[in-house]
Amino acid sequence: MASEPQGKGQSRRCRVAIVGATGYTGGELVRLLLQHPHAEPVALLRLSSEEPLPLHKAHPHLRKLTQLECVPYDEKLLDGIDAAFLAVPNGVAMELAPHLLKRGIKVVDLSADFRFREASTYERWYRKTHAAADWLPRAVYGLPELHRPQIREAQLVANPGCYPISALLALAPLARRKLIRLDSLIIDSKSGVSGAGRSRLEVGYLFTELDNDFRAYGVAGHRHIPEMEQELSALAGEPVRVTFTPHLVPMVRGIFTTAYATLTEPMSLSDLRALYDHDYADEPFVRLLEAGELPRVKSVVGSNFCDLALFVDERTQRVIVLSVLDNLVKGAAGNAIQCLNLMFGWDERAGLWQGGFAP
Amino acid sequence: MASEPQGKGQSRRCRVAIVGATGYTGGELVRLLLQHPHAEPVALLRLSSEEPLPLHKAHPHLRKLTQLECVPYDEKLLDGIDAAFLAVPNGVAMELAPHLLKRGIKVVDLSADFRFREASTYERWYRKTHAAADWLPRAVYGLPELHRPQIREAQLVANPGCYPISALLALAPLARRKLIRLDSLIIDSKSGVSGAGRSRLEVGYLFTELDNDFRAYGVAGHRHIPEMEQELSALAGEPVRVTFTPHLVPMVRGIFTTAYATLTEPMSLSDLRALYDHDYADEPFVRLLEAGELPRVKSVVGSNFCDLALFVDERTQRVIVLSVLDNLVKGAAGNAIQCLNLMFGWDERAGLWQGGFAP
Amino acid sequence: MASEPQGKGQSRRCRVAIVGATGYTGGELVRLLLQHPHAEPVALLRLSSEEPLPLHKAHPHLRKLTQLECVPYDEKLLDGIDAAFLAVPNGVAMELAPHLLKRGIKVVDLSADFRFREASTYERWYRKTHAAADWLPRAVYGLPELHRPQIREAQLVANPGCYPISALLALAPLARRKLIRLDSLIIDSKSGVSGAGRSRLEVGYLFTELDNDFRAYGVAGHRHIPEMEQELSALAGEPVRVTFTPHLVPMVRGIFTTAYATLTEPMSLSDLRALYDHDYADEPFVRLLEAGELPRVKSVVGSNFCDLALFVDERTQRVIVLSVLDNLVKGAAGNAIQCLNLMFGWDERAGLWQGGFAP
Amino acid sequence: MASEPQGKGQSRRCRVAIVGATGYTGGELVRLLLQHPHAEPVALLRLSSEEPLPLHKAHPHLRKLTQLECVPYDEKLLDGIDAAFLAVPNGVAMELAPHLLKRGIKVVDLSADFRFREASTYERWYRKTHAAADWLPRAVYGLPELHRPQIREAQLVANPGCYPISALLALAPLARRKLIRLDSLIIDSKSGVSGAGRSRLEVGYLFTELDNDFRAYGVAGHRHIPEMEQELSALAGEPVRVTFTPHLVPMVRGIFTTAYATLTEPMSLSDLRALYDHDYADEPFVRLLEAGELPRVKSVVGSNFCDLALFVDERTQRVIVLSVLDNLVKGAAGNAIQCLNLMFGWDERAGLWQGGFAP
Repeated sequence: MASEPQGKGQSRRCRVAIVGATGYTGGELVRLLLQHPHAEPVALLRLSSEEPLPLHKAHPHLRKLTQLECVPYDEKLLDGIDAAFLAVPNGVAMELAPHLLKRGIKVVDLSADFRFREASTYERWYRKTHAAADWLPRAVYGLPELHRPQIREAQLVANPGCYPISALLALAPLARRKLIRLDSLIIDSKSGVSGAGRSRLEVGYLFTELDNDFRAYGVAGHRHIPEMEQELSALAGEPVRVTFTPHLVPMVRGIFTTAYATLTEPMSLSDLRALYDHDYADEPFVRLLEAGELPRVKSVVGSNFCDLALFVDERTQRVIVLSVLDNLVKGAAGNAIQCLNLMFGWDERAGLWQGGFAP
Repeated sequence: MASEPQGKGQSRRCRVAIVGATGYTGGELVRLLLQHPHAEPVALLRLSSEEPLPLHKAHPHLRKLTQLECVPYDEKLLDGIDAAFLAVPNGVAMELAPHLLKRGIKVVDLSADFRFREASTYERWYRKTHAAADWLPRAVYGLPELHRPQIREAQLVANPGCYPISALLALAPLARRKLIRLDSLIIDSKSGVSGAGRSRLEVGYLFTELDNDFRAYGVAGHRHIPEMEQELSALAGEPVRVTFTPHLVPMVRGIFTTAYATLTEPMSLSDLRALYDHDYADEPFVRLLEAGELPRVKSVVGSNFCDLALFVDERTQRVIVLSVLDNLVKGAAGNAIQCLNLMFGWDERAGLWQGGFAP
Repeated sequence: MASEPQGKGQSRRCRVAIVGATGYTGGELVRLLLQHPHAEPVALLRLSSEEPLPLHKAHPHLRKLTQLECVPYDEKLLDGIDAAFLAVPNGVAMELAPHLLKRGIKVVDLSADFRFREASTYERWYRKTHAAADWLPRAVYGLPELHRPQIREAQLVANPGCYPISALLALAPLARRKLIRLDSLIIDSKSGVSGAGRSRLEVGYLFTELDNDFRAYGVAGHRHIPEMEQELSALAGEPVRVTFTPHLVPMVRGIFTTAYATLTEPMSLSDLRALYDHDYADEPFVRLLEAGELPRVKSVVGSNFCDLALFVDERTQRVIVLSVLDNLVKGAAGNAIQCLNLMFGWDERAGLWQGGFAP
Repeated sequence: MASEPQGKGQSRRCRVAIVGATGYTGGELVRLLLQHPHAEPVALLRLSSEEPLPLHKAHPHLRKLTQLECVPYDEKLLDGIDAAFLAVPNGVAMELAPHLLKRGIKVVDLSADFRFREASTYERWYRKTHAAADWLPRAVYGLPELHRPQIREAQLVANPGCYPISALLALAPLARRKLIRLDSLIIDSKSGVSGAGRSRLEVGYLFTELDNDFRAYGVAGHRHIPEMEQELSALAGEPVRVTFTPHLVPMVRGIFTTAYATLTEPMSLSDLRALYDHDYADEPFVRLLEAGELPRVKSVVGSNFCDLALFVDERTQRVIVLSVLDNLVKGAAGNAIQCLNLMFGWDERAGLWQGGFAP
């Protein structure tokens, strides 16, 4: 099976809008959708300006591949649109989404605005009143590996945060079986700098400051914590609390998560691996490495894969799960397209079935 | 035109062998061919071992995309092969190629073995006796922008070196019109480290030695010089000599060439740009930047594009041409597939019409 | 106090030999000792060759600063030597050290050979029979912040591993007061690549493989575990087991450790900080950051400082300690010189009281 | 000669002010002066703010080494100051310097304001009216290798630009002997990103944009051109014009210059080397590499050395000179301290005689 699989026949290509096309995630959405067999980007919208911008000014790597320009957001441009990706800041998506949804457009929102079942959780962690709380019950948390059937039926999908995708794929098989002490979860994640986005014009993000540096940030208080806890609690059927520490790695893309949990009772590595194998064997984009293999960020950069490896520290009865993905692909644009594929009934791999980018 | 253009209909996919599949160029060939609409990699061959190797051991980023293994080279594996890429060391290709050619296989050789019209040039610069000199007259120098008609008819294409591609695309419009003094050419090139390949196990290529370093190498004696001179001389109709200095940049992919030449008589930038525009307007993979725009390696990494920018230093009557490409794609695997597309009469862009990879 | 403090007057400079001068740690020892007010490198010895090597062939950054050559190891060269650093592989130091010690030379060994109180621990983790086990009771674990008085009296100091220094400085104040559950320690460390040394000629250490990559290695089985456990157990007065995961960061120098432990009872951050402040206020090379400040590798690269920051995750009752140091300085050569200063009664800061190297 | 040489005895340490202490060059001045045997930084001044800033907020790597704060510039703080470094933007230095000079303070200005003999040159390239043109005749271009006697007597030294230092050291021996065609000079330079400074908050300088990128900038119009031409013309005794192209390398520090010139008549490499050897044998900070050796940025990072290598391209009669230095040290702060040492009659190497920083 060398070439990309085709989905169901489609008479007409799905017309897609991308709101927030000039950022890094927006750029990845354009790059990937330009290769998509069923969807076609037809409107690239930007919020921050009143001027149109040739796409190559924002994304010189896409020069010549399309004539589309990034144009100021205007509701009239939504006529005839079938689906939209919102790659906009938290707090903006909840203002925009209802307008699109009312038009019948299927929406994948990449912000945090629709990720929580409870508006109160959002408001506590994001310190904003939710402007579209009535949509929360209808929004689906867009992790196909956990909520595939619901995504298929959804009109509004909340694409998860990059860290939660990495952590949830690492821990879901353990959490749903309660094989680990639920107060023992420590998630130590390391991210490439593109996670900070392109508009973060602070000294700390200059090349000179980050190259050959390594830092932690948001220690014990990062906003991705409640996402992880919501989903892990749902899997376990009881409240789960996690300690989560994100770090910045001097690389552009990629998240590497080292997740620790204490086993409730001794288990062999091969038994553990069998469970992961059971859960993920049919998942197109999760690759469970062979025993002893170590995952690397470089193996997933540019692709929609998440690589997992399992270890048992027999001396301390802890399981250690290593999880890697590309924060801009499986952690953002790629996962969002995977959701789109499900929402439209296409092959889930459409437009995404390609190798990463190494060396 | 958002999606990749399709070539002529093909009833059967072209069966392709890659000899030397475990290196960086081999990996790119596999990655790109797995997306190709008309060609299919069916044999991944390695010379250095007698053991088969699962593809993901060499290229973990391609795990799960194909079941192919890298197997030891064996002529029997060539049965039914339509085309072959040789991604093997200089000196090895000239031993292998005749066997493949005799079987009627179309060959794109990525080594230096068939790049020279004169065996003596090869022998002087590579210090090896040529083992297949009889094939040299039939080999075509595989730069589509210079030799498209010949490539279409060729059975054996010699894919150019990465530096020569970068320099020739920068200078061809000037050389063929003799607008520059032919003794004034200075080519100062800067390459990412993947150009050194994967088997170069020397202290100098360790991360610790190259990160935050910058070096020159092969000063005034690099083997890509005779390629540049052969092609530039052919364009100019008289002998051209160049000074060429390659440098190593602490990045993985990309070549940036700064080419200097003295104008024989004053010319405005816009007149110069008009000539380049004339020569390259129909070239799918050459992008002439707008006046004042500066090319960046990051704009071409992962894609088959070569970006060019022109400047005139009015104070010294020099023209400065900046040229960037990805050494593993337009500088190797991508250009080789572009040649394959021509050799089989497919759309030249087949399998290659995709954006680079940024940030 | 802008300039480096002077120690006691010395009539004669201490004559120092460095065995293993061509590696990265050896290079740092030479660089630092060339600035030392009381010690002078007079013999640079190498084991792996029978040829002398000009120092700048191994360390071009030190060209012109000394006329010393790296010469093959020969016991005759030890005549008149007062002190020696062994920057040699594990297993080699235990063969060499007894010869030097018998001559009355003070020895700081940077290998693992003399770090363990029990030869059996060494033999279990390093899978070698100890060739100088009789010296183990007299060897002092060379972490000044834990064993300063003993180092002052020692003839043989075992310089700790880079990870253990980072972890022990992070956790000692908690361990010695048993404020944490001793079965709750998780040490997640991230190291620059120079930790792998210069002679590791493997594909995985090439620039192309490590740049923009991030990996774990030695998961649940790294040899620095028993060092950490030996020292933490001694501090706590009962056996401590840790889970330790080292990772490789695409940077040259630096270790960043994120240490997690569960508090036995709730404590405020300011109370915890007060304890650290108490323990480290007089330590010249430990810098406790202000509340809320985040340590960065770039702040310690090139210097002998270890920066610490404390956090309490109130939701989970965990304390999180962040610790950074330069693996080649405070993690190796610098700490070794700090020990030398103590062994000879000089100001502990001699030769080391200088700023790191940023940006 | 292992330790730093001492200069003439000084009863009192020279009291030094640094104006612009929070930038990268300011940080290097502080770092180096904290080790200086004769000078002591006593005032760290900043222009951009009315608030004092603890030094470690700007330069966390210098935490604990000094109690100095960065305080708002105020002329009263200049009382008792013997010498000042101006690490401020172009156009600001010419406003400040006269006030300091009137007080008898010796000034080393690291901006471009006093580098030109003719105010008109400054005004043409910097597009500013010169506010202190009367000081230009008394200002000395602070390249010790060219103007040592004048620097010794100067009250105002204009520290050269980083690129000109690199290019002038490469070409001076050829220019002063007119061994090269004066219209043939091409200077292709590659710089680390710290050259852009710390206050350049533009998207293009983010880590994500620069890592794995390579670019040119200021093609055929960089402001360092007139400096190079002024000094080369003075050496040659007739007008010299250069083509100069600067590039940005994804590394923090370092400049690598590849300089090309056509020999007026054939010369052997050994004859050329003899001339360079003659000119530079007594220069403490210029290291002429052995024939065939290739300079590397990593060999000079952190030190005040400039490494040079010579090549002759016999096929084209060109000489190629490779020159490397650390743009923040020999290209800025280190060279400025070297000038200070000369201005005060100390050993020229004082505070600077230390190895670079590798790996």
